[in-house]
Amino acid sequence: MMSIAQFQQLIRDMYLEKDLARGVDGTFMWLMEEVGELASCLRHGTHEERLEEFADVLAWLTTIANVVGVDLTEAVSRKYGLGCPGCGQVVCSCAAAEKP
Amino acid sequence: MMSIAQFQQLIRDMYLEKDLARGVDGTFMWLMEEVGELASCLRHGTHEERLEEFADVLAWLTTIANVVGVDLTEAVSRKYGLGCPGCGQVVCSCAAAEKP
Repeated sequence: MMSIAQFQQLIRDMYLEKDLARGVDGTFMWLMEEVGELASCLRHGTHEERLEEFADVLAWLTTIANVVGVDLTEAVSRKYGLGCPGCGQVVCSCAAAEKP
Repeated sequence: MMSIAQFQQLIRDMYLEKDLARGVDGTFMWLMEEVGELASCLRHGTHEERLEEFADVLAWLTTIANVVGVDLTEAVSRKYGLGCPGCGQVVCSCAAAEKP
């Protein structure tokens, strides 16, 4: 079991100092590189490789949240904690073409 | 408190059926749109708007993980649970230019 807050703290301990020094723009570039690797992996990768790329995208996203002081637990609880933000249902009933 | 697994289940309940029908490629396009909104928000957004965009990127990333059967808790525990994958330390000591 790992909470979103525990993961955010783990990434904070591991990388905050370096990522603060690098700044948001440079850190976002690393996120983009990992997003590209994830795309490639979704097409051609094994399950093991996908595990790794999802972890990396999550880690870079989380470190950017740390740099700008966003609490991810607060973020997802507010937006998704009460159901789909589009239709308000637990099982989304928005039209397929709509943005949820 | 919300665990990564609880969030992944919430997103599964909310969106899996629609996202399975849409497929990985189409769902990845939504992720990219949200990544673009996050970038814009990091430049020009308020704290409230950033909370929302981080939540959206996390949600789309999570729904893609659901579509391809990746457990995000397993993913991050394996990759980051024992320290930085680059240097093995809890507080990363990789050179700044290196990919952690």
